[in-house]
Amino acid sequence: MSTTEPKRRGRRPNGTDTKDALLTAAREVFAEQGYEAATVRAIAGSAGVDPAMVKHWFGGKEGLFTAAVQIPINPAEILKQVLAGPREQIGERIMRRFVSTWDTVGGGQFAALMRSVASNEQAVTMLREFVQNVLFNRLVKVLDVDNPELRVALCGSQLVGLGMARYVVRIEPLASADADTVAATIGPNLQRYLTGDLGTTNFT
Amino acid sequence: MSTTEPKRRGRRPNGTDTKDALLTAAREVFAEQGYEAATVRAIAGSAGVDPAMVKHWFGGKEGLFTAAVQIPINPAEILKQVLAGPREQIGERIMRRFVSTWDTVGGGQFAALMRSVASNEQAVTMLREFVQNVLFNRLVKVLDVDNPELRVALCGSQLVGLGMARYVVRIEPLASADADTVAATIGPNLQRYLTGDLGTTNFT
Repeated sequence: MSTTEPKRRGRRPNGTDTKDALLTAAREVFAEQGYEAATVRAIAGSAGVDPAMVKHWFGGKEGLFTAAVQIPINPAEILKQVLAGPREQIGERIMRRFVSTWDTVGGGQFAALMRSVASNEQAVTMLREFVQNVLFNRLVKVLDVDNPELRVALCGSQLVGLGMARYVVRIEPLASADADTVAATIGPNLQRYLTGDLGTTNFT
Repeated sequence: MSTTEPKRRGRRPNGTDTKDALLTAAREVFAEQGYEAATVRAIAGSAGVDPAMVKHWFGGKEGLFTAAVQIPINPAEILKQVLAGPREQIGERIMRRFVSTWDTVGGGQFAALMRSVASNEQAVTMLREFVQNVLFNRLVKVLDVDNPELRVALCGSQLVGLGMARYVVRIEPLASADADTVAATIGPNLQRYLTGDLGTTNFT
């Protein structure tokens, strides 16, 4: 993507204003309406820019959401990676991916995310939408398991908890454990949440 | 002990000042020195009150710590309760206790705790000390298992994560699940962290 956007936009030589306006509007609209209901058109309208700018700057609704929630990943690519390989090792692959993603940004970004979640209802909604609708709902749909919503919530609890323990509270030895250790120790627990017997049958 | 404090209780008819001074001093000293190293004498000295006041108002160092960290539990009583019963159901009992404790205070207190943890290094240290030294180190010592420190950290990750998912991010159906459901779904995972095969042998 160009760093010196051409003439088109008089007062926005490099698109910074447009991007910022879209991110601000996205945080509001996603938090109000949820990920599924929010439309690119509504967000662009709220930002006062052409909906085509969403595709131009963020690749689409999902990219805009990810940028708005400041989570440094590409959900579609992650799902593909997580599903490529034995079904019984999905938990391990998720843990590896989780650790490598957040380690790359030094963990400070996770702490910042938790800080905004703890102090701001909009951030809470964004994170919930992200965990549920962007990541895990799609995964459990592919896995075709019982109690999909409960499984999604359980996975969310372990991932958010690991992030807190590793990057915010920094409980050793988990804070500095390598990806192999995290995958070996937490992977099987996540796997049970995804595909195992939850010990409860009639929960919705 | 204070060298400046004149007549001990004169200006504190109901102990509020003494308690507040002790809580403030406790947060500082515990965060600086950790739970084990901090002494009742040092905290009382820093607060400018007689060490006997710690016993009088909080029952001792542990009670003062619990009050300072604003976690609504009695660690000694919890450990006793958790250890009373089959070893293979410790995870379930912990989950029941965790949910009933925080549900009682409406969850808002957990959110407040996370808010302070996310924004304040002292609160981080307090929470870490609490999870490690006050609760789980004692438990794994009694259980006599390998990799005790790693197990403590893993348990911490799941409990903090459940608290975040249930009380802060409020991911349904986990946010409103009853204690039976939480115990059945998360209990076995916690049990693996406590007494199961972690898939890694030479980690310290």
